[in-house]
Amino acid sequence: MKGIWTYHELLPEVENRARMSLGEGHTPLVKSRFIGPALGLDNLYFKLENLNPTGSYKDRFAAMALSRFVQQGVKVCLATSSGNTGAALAAYCAAAQLPCIMAIVDGAPEGKLQQMRVYGAATLMVKDFGRSPAVTDQVMTMLGRLAEEQQTSVQISAYCFCPEAMEGVQTIAYEIAEAFDEGAQVFVPAGGGGLTLAVARGFERWKQQHETARHHVVHCVQPEGNDTIVSALASGQMHPTAVPHSETAISGLQVPNVLDGLEVIAACRRSGGTGFGVQDEHVWECQDWLAKKEGIFCEPAGAVALAGVRRALAEGSLAPEQPIVCLITGHGFKDMQRASVMASTSGNAYLANEAGLKNYIIQLITKKNER
Amino acid sequence: MKGIWTYHELLPEVENRARMSLGEGHTPLVKSRFIGPALGLDNLYFKLENLNPTGSYKDRFAAMALSRFVQQGVKVCLATSSGNTGAALAAYCAAAQLPCIMAIVDGAPEGKLQQMRVYGAATLMVKDFGRSPAVTDQVMTMLGRLAEEQQTSVQISAYCFCPEAMEGVQTIAYEIAEAFDEGAQVFVPAGGGGLTLAVARGFERWKQQHETARHHVVHCVQPEGNDTIVSALASGQMHPTAVPHSETAISGLQVPNVLDGLEVIAACRRSGGTGFGVQDEHVWECQDWLAKKEGIFCEPAGAVALAGVRRALAEGSLAPEQPIVCLITGHGFKDMQRASVMASTSGNAYLANEAGLKNYIIQLITKKNER
Repeated sequence: MKGIWTYHELLPEVENRARMSLGEGHTPLVKSRFIGPALGLDNLYFKLENLNPTGSYKDRFAAMALSRFVQQGVKVCLATSSGNTGAALAAYCAAAQLPCIMAIVDGAPEGKLQQMRVYGAATLMVKDFGRSPAVTDQVMTMLGRLAEEQQTSVQISAYCFCPEAMEGVQTIAYEIAEAFDEGAQVFVPAGGGGLTLAVARGFERWKQQHETARHHVVHCVQPEGNDTIVSALASGQMHPTAVPHSETAISGLQVPNVLDGLEVIAACRRSGGTGFGVQDEHVWECQDWLAKKEGIFCEPAGAVALAGVRRALAEGSLAPEQPIVCLITGHGFKDMQRASVMASTSGNAYLANEAGLKNYIIQLITKKNER
Repeated sequence: MKGIWTYHELLPEVENRARMSLGEGHTPLVKSRFIGPALGLDNLYFKLENLNPTGSYKDRFAAMALSRFVQQGVKVCLATSSGNTGAALAAYCAAAQLPCIMAIVDGAPEGKLQQMRVYGAATLMVKDFGRSPAVTDQVMTMLGRLAEEQQTSVQISAYCFCPEAMEGVQTIAYEIAEAFDEGAQVFVPAGGGGLTLAVARGFERWKQQHETARHHVVHCVQPEGNDTIVSALASGQMHPTAVPHSETAISGLQVPNVLDGLEVIAACRRSGGTGFGVQDEHVWECQDWLAKKEGIFCEPAGAVALAGVRRALAEGSLAPEQPIVCLITGHGFKDMQRASVMASTSGNAYLANEAGLKNYIIQLITKKNER
């Protein structure tokens, strides 16, 4: 059994018969060919979490969550995602033959829900859920009670809700630790902070198990429009900041609630890491760079870590000799609206005949050579 | 260096400095949890080629093609795909910093071209290219001449055009051979036949290198509406059949030209394999099964191998004790139109309040328990 179970000794106990895998984990670690050298970084790497089975690192969470359900004989999965967690849970529920029922934030984009329903999940949108705090509370309370009645638990990808399933995500750190004996500086995007905390805890757990292991630094990156963690972290505070209204357009990182924020600040600090805020425009620029300069197509949130590296460089707070790893968290196909913006139209033409094609190609080649 | 280069000893020589990888290959081999047992097959496996970097096995082709270009100092990539080959070449060209210019079949769906342009490729559609044989010939001839002038070659994923790059695809067989010491029966979908031939040749090459290796059987599966290979193969003929008009709706397998067909028939036969034709409806059914019963989301062509297994079972020509491997060739996100058909609407609702959500969930759970 592969997937996250390669590291079963470092994970919550699950019997062999209950361990589920759809091939999550063991994602490629690709060395930058263009962006790194362009930034003066000889050792810039991308950890391609977008190549997990449903297109994001959340598959590591879902693999652990559903394995525990299978072990415990749970009969139904209740959850509240409107994004990548939902798609991951839907897929692993399909494989486990469990019904997957998701309470969806009012106004969530149909495209994201479609991926969940492809796997057979039910996506139930509730008026004002995720918009009105009162309705959100009511729904969460009702779901909690219903989950208890049904002998299950509500799945949300944060330590404050599902600590054991989150340990599945810690395998990202184990894979990076195995690849970089010499230690690395890892840049991680944060919404609620669960992923960053998982990576930091993963390195700590790894070090407990491998005494000679070198130290890894974990940096947290957030869009400035939803700065619940990074300013507090960078300025030496202990507590995260509540944001009344998330103002970033980066989908998946708009969580204004302080979920794992407190622990994230402490864990990043223990690792020697800090926080970096980035502008949405720089994130989109990095997303476009990754596709056109490295051949890596990720969703906007997947480019946030790279934007953080640029920010760290601008601030002069990056040691260029140590390996630097950016977590690329989700696949570009998750957000086809952005993809249509990125798809350059300059090399897009309908030509009347073979002669027209020839002229156009020669034009393109000449233009390229002139650059 | 990982990716296809794990098997560099079995591949055309490329210097270390020129070897490219975006994390292609080493795709998961997942054991069926539901469909296999439901069909009475204890050892049914899915090889998830859809989890390659651009979502299809063509990344193995592109990795080899572009590595050779880098080695040879080629300055531009010309190609003629309108599907997965194009996306793969576009991504590896971006990583190699080579311009990628694609002559596109008239009428190819915009969605497929968008993925190529995200990576910065030029997609040039030519009136009647791929429709009129005269125009198609003209374009191909012109491209060939232009390629010669530019000291490059036109990239098409078939042995009859690009035999060395196709050797990159043979790594699929090496990975399966390593996983199944005891030998396996491998079901492979075919359009022009390049993939099937690569898998069959890969096993032969593996056996030359590993004398004690067991024998692997390669079966070829095609939609009945484009039966260039499978009937000829199954009925003992040597030559493939030209199809005047492809009548299958399975995108990617509509190639009516007999590209690698002759060699495919010989190679499958040498392996002890045969051909299976499948109906489009059964392919879609299998695609839906894979998503909803196994948590595997593939494009229609990716479900053709499983449809072939069902056909083989119906014909009584399958040894159920030996491992059976279906190649899942491309990701579901490649064809979002089909995805919207697959996304069940039965569990999709907009509810007025928390009480409505509760009632709906209880209804769903009750219905599920009654089944």
